[in-house]
Amino acid sequence: MASSLTHCYSSPSSTTTLLLRRRHPINVGPTSLRFFTIHSSPSSSRVLSIAASATEASSAKVIDGKTVAKQIRDEIAVEVSRMREAAGVIPGLAVILVGDRKDSATYVRNKKKACETVGINSLEVNLPEDSTEEEVLNHIAGYNDDPSVHGILVQLPLPSHMNEQNVLNAVRIEKDVDGFHPLNIGRLAMRGREPLFVPCTPKGCIELLHRYGVSIKGKRAVVIGRSNIVGMPAALLLQREDATVSIVHSRTTNPEEIIRQADIIIAAVGQPNMVKGSWIKPGAVIIDVGINPVDDPSSSRGYKLVGDVCYEEAVKVASAITPVPGGVGPMTIAMLLQNTLISAKRIHSFE
Amino acid sequence: MASSLTHCYSSPSSTTTLLLRRRHPINVGPTSLRFFTIHSSPSSSRVLSIAASATEASSAKVIDGKTVAKQIRDEIAVEVSRMREAAGVIPGLAVILVGDRKDSATYVRNKKKACETVGINSLEVNLPEDSTEEEVLNHIAGYNDDPSVHGILVQLPLPSHMNEQNVLNAVRIEKDVDGFHPLNIGRLAMRGREPLFVPCTPKGCIELLHRYGVSIKGKRAVVIGRSNIVGMPAALLLQREDATVSIVHSRTTNPEEIIRQADIIIAAVGQPNMVKGSWIKPGAVIIDVGINPVDDPSSSRGYKLVGDVCYEEAVKVASAITPVPGGVGPMTIAMLLQNTLISAKRIHSFE
Repeated sequence: MASSLTHCYSSPSSTTTLLLRRRHPINVGPTSLRFFTIHSSPSSSRVLSIAASATEASSAKVIDGKTVAKQIRDEIAVEVSRMREAAGVIPGLAVILVGDRKDSATYVRNKKKACETVGINSLEVNLPEDSTEEEVLNHIAGYNDDPSVHGILVQLPLPSHMNEQNVLNAVRIEKDVDGFHPLNIGRLAMRGREPLFVPCTPKGCIELLHRYGVSIKGKRAVVIGRSNIVGMPAALLLQREDATVSIVHSRTTNPEEIIRQADIIIAAVGQPNMVKGSWIKPGAVIIDVGINPVDDPSSSRGYKLVGDVCYEEAVKVASAITPVPGGVGPMTIAMLLQNTLISAKRIHSFE
Repeated sequence: MASSLTHCYSSPSSTTTLLLRRRHPINVGPTSLRFFTIHSSPSSSRVLSIAASATEASSAKVIDGKTVAKQIRDEIAVEVSRMREAAGVIPGLAVILVGDRKDSATYVRNKKKACETVGINSLEVNLPEDSTEEEVLNHIAGYNDDPSVHGILVQLPLPSHMNEQNVLNAVRIEKDVDGFHPLNIGRLAMRGREPLFVPCTPKGCIELLHRYGVSIKGKRAVVIGRSNIVGMPAALLLQREDATVSIVHSRTTNPEEIIRQADIIIAAVGQPNMVKGSWIKPGAVIIDVGINPVDDPSSSRGYKLVGDVCYEEAVKVASAITPVPGGVGPMTIAMLLQNTLISAKRIHSFE
């Protein structure tokens, strides 16, 4: 146990912490099922069914976000093609990038590539760091009015001289594929209301639970972190699916005690290896949204990425877990593509 | 204990259950403080301070919503008068009542009376049961444009032939003193955003905690019930104040276990005496929003009102508790008046 803890202890790398930045990996593991097997027929079956089996080794099933995301992209590609042929419409996603942050440029490039793989048109505007807020707003206004654009995404963070809230609020709610508009969040919170879009990362978390056949209704779910982009909407989504949800955050006095009660854990706090194996209820399902760079002299980059959950310990206790990377990360972009498709279908009343 | 349980067991009355209808009583009791005394200077002190005292009898302090509501109304009256004198503006609340439900008529009458006591203008329109949705919408449009109206309230429930969502959405968000608009709820859920109005009943619950000096930050809070008008916004408010919040609902498999962990309980589920004394952590603070009619042959009305918490049992375990009636009920109307004042101040930029 000591060596395992040592293994999981890592000081954050000197590189910028990606703390809860948009779209990054998760970890997952099933709930009341202590051990389970995944029966998957890669191309045809939508749900990867999980069957309990008490005879297997005490090691969690790894929930493969990369494979699930690929499956979802394939499904989206089929729909995009059907829409193009039947209605002559190609869904379009516009991305606005301001400044020259390398990480942001990488995210945007990945989104563009993902759009290409499913046949979604991607439009992009790259504005210099010293652009004015008005220039950004003008581009948003143009995309708002452009009928070939069904989703608009402003890559965050924006340069510090801009008011992020003003900029995000300028995106027409019908094209806000990020789902961060307060009106969307309000609808997500309210029973009997439907949001236009569900924010991509939390949507990806729930989609992984669904695709792995993890039952949510009536289960104890603990969300660690209460950010606007992951923790809070993830808690609202779990509640919509009838989980009993608790939210743990920096002011929580006894996080271990509460986390230990969870059948489903969604960790989105940006603390490397914060959740230890001893904090996890045997058989819990873990979705790890954290993606934290920590020093790793053995890597050529000098660092490696780890989640918010101590994977080496958790994998021995949980019934299923998402790896970092390769868990939630790929799901986030897949959900962005799905939201763009949903938007195009809605705008063109295509079913 | 058996007799106590028997005492708390009551079958719902044959009269319509007021299950989570707008604006009704709560119960409260303090958190980490097992016993406490309230030092209150009726007119001048805003906060009723609570001091721990281990020597008192093992009976919860009764949180007197009626007295607190009166205190708040007095404060509002001062502000209304100051605004009238300094800016020549009188806050106005318009209430739309459709149909002739007796309970709705009573609620509306109480609101009108409350407005009078603080100097707020109250406008009222009474439409017949068979009015069309368009007629209701026309009245809302009129109030939306009327500069003497700062708050608009549509008394629910509406007749079944109307679309409640359409009607509520027609109220201008700047005058939606109920705070039920999804945009408001979204802002309530999001960190760094501020709602224009906080829904009255949950706002009243938190206000009682504040006025009784109950510390919320870092405390375990359990909200029982997840309605759009009480449970859900109450959970969001507790979270904004840094409580660690869990939401218990009809699909929760082990409500007792979770409720027993709570330092603060807000019960808003509409089940008479559902929460037993044995479900309560010693020293917990209980806010009971339930107001349920149960048979009572000894009453001239044939029924009495009880909360969601078995009061007789809870009072022996909790450190503070709101009675039913006389707890949250009066607070709800006080918060409505406060929201109307806030709206008038905002519209006229009066500070």
